[in-house]
Amino acid sequence: MKLSQLDTPVLLIEEDSFLRNMKRMQELATNAGIAYRPHAKAHKSAEIAKMQKGAGAVGVCCAKLGEAEVLVSHEIKDILITTPVIGISKLTRMMQIAKEATISVVVDNADNLAEMAAVAQTCGVRPDVVIEVDVGQGRCGVQPGDPALQLAYEVMNADWLNFKGLQGYQGAIQMTASFVERNAAARKAVGLLTDTADLIRKAGLPLEYLTGGGSGTSVIDAASAGLTELQPGGYLFMDSRYREIEWDDGNSIPFEQSLTVLASVISLPEPGRCILDMGLKAISSDGGPPSPVDVPGAVFKFGGEEHSELTFEDGKCPLALNDKVAFVPTHCDTTVNLYDRFIAYSDDEVVDVWSIAARGRVQ
Amino acid sequence: MKLSQLDTPVLLIEEDSFLRNMKRMQELATNAGIAYRPHAKAHKSAEIAKMQKGAGAVGVCCAKLGEAEVLVSHEIKDILITTPVIGISKLTRMMQIAKEATISVVVDNADNLAEMAAVAQTCGVRPDVVIEVDVGQGRCGVQPGDPALQLAYEVMNADWLNFKGLQGYQGAIQMTASFVERNAAARKAVGLLTDTADLIRKAGLPLEYLTGGGSGTSVIDAASAGLTELQPGGYLFMDSRYREIEWDDGNSIPFEQSLTVLASVISLPEPGRCILDMGLKAISSDGGPPSPVDVPGAVFKFGGEEHSELTFEDGKCPLALNDKVAFVPTHCDTTVNLYDRFIAYSDDEVVDVWSIAARGRVQ
Repeated sequence: MKLSQLDTPVLLIEEDSFLRNMKRMQELATNAGIAYRPHAKAHKSAEIAKMQKGAGAVGVCCAKLGEAEVLVSHEIKDILITTPVIGISKLTRMMQIAKEATISVVVDNADNLAEMAAVAQTCGVRPDVVIEVDVGQGRCGVQPGDPALQLAYEVMNADWLNFKGLQGYQGAIQMTASFVERNAAARKAVGLLTDTADLIRKAGLPLEYLTGGGSGTSVIDAASAGLTELQPGGYLFMDSRYREIEWDDGNSIPFEQSLTVLASVISLPEPGRCILDMGLKAISSDGGPPSPVDVPGAVFKFGGEEHSELTFEDGKCPLALNDKVAFVPTHCDTTVNLYDRFIAYSDDEVVDVWSIAARGRVQ
Repeated sequence: MKLSQLDTPVLLIEEDSFLRNMKRMQELATNAGIAYRPHAKAHKSAEIAKMQKGAGAVGVCCAKLGEAEVLVSHEIKDILITTPVIGISKLTRMMQIAKEATISVVVDNADNLAEMAAVAQTCGVRPDVVIEVDVGQGRCGVQPGDPALQLAYEVMNADWLNFKGLQGYQGAIQMTASFVERNAAARKAVGLLTDTADLIRKAGLPLEYLTGGGSGTSVIDAASAGLTELQPGGYLFMDSRYREIEWDDGNSIPFEQSLTVLASVISLPEPGRCILDMGLKAISSDGGPPSPVDVPGAVFKFGGEEHSELTFEDGKCPLALNDKVAFVPTHCDTTVNLYDRFIAYSDDEVVDVWSIAARGRVQ
């Protein structure tokens, strides 16, 4: 089947660049001697998680328990949940999957820890606990240094929890365009994490595992030898914001744009303007407007939830009714979350369909 | 089950205000002698479409063919598709549901019309065609007057298509806050449609059906006696943008806020700041940031796809870990499209669950 035969809007992956992206990140981690645990929040797909495992991943990350439940049911058996899991209901759900998979979870709060230990005992499972340290993002996490040490003691004292290590993720700098700035910020973040790890080790607690990093800082994290595990997600797909960053000294990012949304022209209301079938429900807007591929001179505008518009300043729209236009999203994760499947293609031919089985699993 | 026992983030409907909203719009249409055909793009739910039918709706609108397919499979048998359906693949899909339901579709292009007629003949069905007229929005639609008449002739000349009438929707003015401004713009839009209808009737073509209007202009459309059918969608739910408009002279909008997203506090990283489990994947941002309900002094900020943050200027966060906070979306339609079900409640008790079966049906 040709791409032009697909009903639209449709979420596409160019398979060759996608697979090259996967290989590049795996090699970056392997060459640095760091474990590769890609973040499944970006793709929410069991098929892709399995490909990542096949490419050498030790497991995957999930942002939410609901994503982890879906992946465990599809035989993904080593998952780190990178957001706190709070309350008896969710903790009980977590223990259920911890009976059939290796589940680690981040913690930044002593009350959550105590409740988790109690639920673990009730359920008779012993999850791995990773202390989340705020290394500069100012979101979740205990502060580096003594607060992290105190929480580590609490984990060690909880009979039904294993102390696995620390997580430090500085999401705010992943898209900092300047390599010099991103490098300084990323090294500072990793430094806060390794200093905290040293403090915990000096106190006599066992600590090997330092997880974190994202697609934007992965090259820095690999070089700075602080983290033992990398958590990149968006590198598989890229988006127009990621693609703009300077990778390292003078180089552009080596990951290719594999993800696009294909839309169709559904109306030609006047010369110089066409309407497409892709609105806010078909491509995300939180990162800004998407970019049309190979339509020189086109100016994009959302036309509400169901439509968008391309206008041409010369008054000549080169597109005909039902012509297809591919768009690069500004934010891959939130665009993927709008769809139930990826259509993988190569050379204009559909080659595979991958379910986004964990789409919408926000709980 | 109490709301506080639900895992979050979760999409809630306060059932009593929701039902009052439904009744108010039905009465507004009935009192004006206008048909009530609510837009299912807002809720994408067969259960709600059936309730609307029960409340007197003649049928529903769908924005996309895929929504219509889902609703037809759930026994909703009278649907107007308000966006052009383009290309042989989609037209063939449309004829399949037109075999088991009354399907009307908008058209604004002669090539689309010719292709539709050919596919209709092949499939042996005769869909109803509604000419979309651009009454000021500048999106899809033929221009009012002679261009609409010429397309009406083409529909009349197509053996396998029924000419049903005209659609004119001015989406850009639905949220114009000032009643005076919205009233003037809405009457202008309806005037363009009724003038076009008069022209078509004078040419000897049969024309009874004029459909359009939205939640914001419904009170004006009902009073101006131009449309024969109203297409409101968001009135069921409301959102913070709709709630701000002046309804008619001096009155605020009579529809109540029935839709919220309930989130939980998952981290208390420092005094005066808490993190919730609701990010860009759990409430839409295209209309701006959502508003927390009953949390005085809280300042909201998105914290990426999975988190958000409330800060308190006095440095005192009144919320504890796992406390629940309800949020009013700025855009109900795009928020609903993130979820697979509504949880309906009354007095803090869950009373029903309605599937959002057409979620994500963008094709």
